[in-house]
Amino acid sequence: MAVGNFKFPEMQEISGVKLGTACADIKQTKRDDILVIEMSESSTCAAVFTQNAFCAAPVVIARQNLKNKPRWLLINSGNANAGTADQGIQDALSCCTNIAGLFEGRLDQVLPFSTGVIGEYLPVEKITKALPYAVRNLAMDNWSKAAHAIMTTDTFAKGTSRTIDIAGQPVSITGISKGAGMIQPNMATMLAFIATDAKISQPELQICLQLAVEQSFNRITVDGDTSTNDACVLIASGGSAAPEITTENEYIQTFSEALLGICHELAEAIIRDGEGATKLIRIIVKQAKDSEEAVRVGKTIAHSPLVKTAFFASDPNWGRILAAVGRAGVEKLQLTDVVIYLGNVCIVRNGGRAEDYIEAEGQLIMNEDEITVTVLLGLGDASEEIITCDFSYDYVRINAEYRT
Amino acid sequence: MAVGNFKFPEMQEISGVKLGTACADIKQTKRDDILVIEMSESSTCAAVFTQNAFCAAPVVIARQNLKNKPRWLLINSGNANAGTADQGIQDALSCCTNIAGLFEGRLDQVLPFSTGVIGEYLPVEKITKALPYAVRNLAMDNWSKAAHAIMTTDTFAKGTSRTIDIAGQPVSITGISKGAGMIQPNMATMLAFIATDAKISQPELQICLQLAVEQSFNRITVDGDTSTNDACVLIASGGSAAPEITTENEYIQTFSEALLGICHELAEAIIRDGEGATKLIRIIVKQAKDSEEAVRVGKTIAHSPLVKTAFFASDPNWGRILAAVGRAGVEKLQLTDVVIYLGNVCIVRNGGRAEDYIEAEGQLIMNEDEITVTVLLGLGDASEEIITCDFSYDYVRINAEYRT
Repeated sequence: MAVGNFKFPEMQEISGVKLGTACADIKQTKRDDILVIEMSESSTCAAVFTQNAFCAAPVVIARQNLKNKPRWLLINSGNANAGTADQGIQDALSCCTNIAGLFEGRLDQVLPFSTGVIGEYLPVEKITKALPYAVRNLAMDNWSKAAHAIMTTDTFAKGTSRTIDIAGQPVSITGISKGAGMIQPNMATMLAFIATDAKISQPELQICLQLAVEQSFNRITVDGDTSTNDACVLIASGGSAAPEITTENEYIQTFSEALLGICHELAEAIIRDGEGATKLIRIIVKQAKDSEEAVRVGKTIAHSPLVKTAFFASDPNWGRILAAVGRAGVEKLQLTDVVIYLGNVCIVRNGGRAEDYIEAEGQLIMNEDEITVTVLLGLGDASEEIITCDFSYDYVRINAEYRT
Repeated sequence: MAVGNFKFPEMQEISGVKLGTACADIKQTKRDDILVIEMSESSTCAAVFTQNAFCAAPVVIARQNLKNKPRWLLINSGNANAGTADQGIQDALSCCTNIAGLFEGRLDQVLPFSTGVIGEYLPVEKITKALPYAVRNLAMDNWSKAAHAIMTTDTFAKGTSRTIDIAGQPVSITGISKGAGMIQPNMATMLAFIATDAKISQPELQICLQLAVEQSFNRITVDGDTSTNDACVLIASGGSAAPEITTENEYIQTFSEALLGICHELAEAIIRDGEGATKLIRIIVKQAKDSEEAVRVGKTIAHSPLVKTAFFASDPNWGRILAAVGRAGVEKLQLTDVVIYLGNVCIVRNGGRAEDYIEAEGQLIMNEDEITVTVLLGLGDASEEIITCDFSYDYVRINAEYRT
């Protein structure tokens, strides 16, 4: 199940960035599960990774190799290569060595990424066998195939693309993402790969990515479970005729906004495809003391199983939202100052149910596929938006059956 | 559904403490939903309440009246009288006034408690009508009826009782509790009422209660949702022939241990009856830096929907437990130092799956109704135990249907 219709869009090719997929049959799914991305020598590459203390073997290596002007990304689905100790590091390095060999490059220029089940060893032999096929298939127009190859419990492939104008020249940004469960990204999401033909130095690219990720992937949650493998990569190939983007010129603003838009779309697509999701819920927290407080309140609501099941049932059970706000650990919070809206219907005001609230109106909002909850705390000026989904029978089914 | 067989035990009567129930038909359940508890004039009374910032109207009043040497407790199920603003306070006071009138006591000697749906006004008229019946039925041997009257989504009544020896004299402690959902008590549980015939001053009783609650009710969680109405009350009637218990004599130790035992049993009964629960899971965290860290790790595991659904499926998916530990925000945590046991089977050691782990052995443990997970962090000496339950289809069903 997924919320809304997500049609895979036309993807703008990025000159200097080629993608190739292959089937290594990692989880016996008979579909492509290997993705190789090659970037031109002129490219810069930024990345952010999970803050989970037990990050997976490929994350350890990718984080290390990021400083070596990487040229190749190697991604597999179906196996996370996490919780695999030294063997996991060796396995990831073996795969990287293979890629380096096929391109006559250096091992430390390859960034590996894995997603799938935790705690099983990577089938290195299968991957090694499939890699030449992926390399042979490298092409600039393979974004859709790439988006499909990185899926796990995803029910649709996620991608988005846009072209902006920098000094009269077109600059494109194109990205793909995956993820449906174990989603509460902290610094990056499950996996997202974005490329642009803009010209921009690595340190500046890294800053742009971090800012965009903080306001997009780090604001979504399916189940509150931060993965061991989260990673988001941004490649800038410099293939566009536009001038270099730097923090010194005005182009950075245009570029950053477009990048945030791309990250937003990819992050929201993950929530639309949240495991078992039937509804997409935007939780906007306003009048918080600071951003941290707004995020905390938003996530407390978003993680409440009682709130999530009420959304699944289309039940305007606002008491559960109120109780979640009340337990979010907000200092000096006064019930009488809190105002809560369901869509445009005020449900809580003056310390209780809003006087003019009619349940039929709340019910109408709850029947929608996409619902906005707005919470005003009456404490300050900070606002944040968290995007989440509901909790259904299918969430339980998917996660009770995942390994079987 | 509930985990294990819980047979309501023989309950020791507490001299000086009488209980009476009645049906006010608050939720049209045609069963007793009102409980009045009268304590003798010599009684002392301690209580702890929810830390949810939006505590319910009865909690506001009970907290206030606790200092006035309370004589009566008035409890209703079926309606939480939470999120009901000033009207809620007025309604609770009306009910207290009624009780005071029936006993010719003072309004400020009544502590009100409510549990049930949030955001609906208390049906004061119905309750007023039922109160005389409850008062007429007051008796020392009504503990079982009382335990039934305070149930909401509970599937069984919860009670326990024990008698200890203080200076050669018997001292009894008897208690009841309720709760199945919106359970992550913080300072107290949904509702628990405990009475003893020990003689003990109010300040010392309050300390005993706080210590016991911290190690019992505050260590359980069903869904991480701290209620607006949590309360735990301890009455000491002084009816026993035993000498007074004070922090100056050795009896306090015996008493505190027995009280903790009672609280433990009542808290564990709530988890056995957790909404949709099919398994009871004890999460023991050892070698933490301090107690707070141990609790945080335990609760991160206990609240992970992925861990909870894996338990429901009897799937020894230890990667999910590992990922939860990794995202618990523990400083200086080294994957290589972490050891995890499922029952007595070591599943994680040296940074990955334990070398000698055989999945069939993990599977045997997971098939049990009651499972212990032990996590060694390798950081310090603190240990804590969190008790929780799994996440099933029935959890979703119960909470999607709750108000319909």
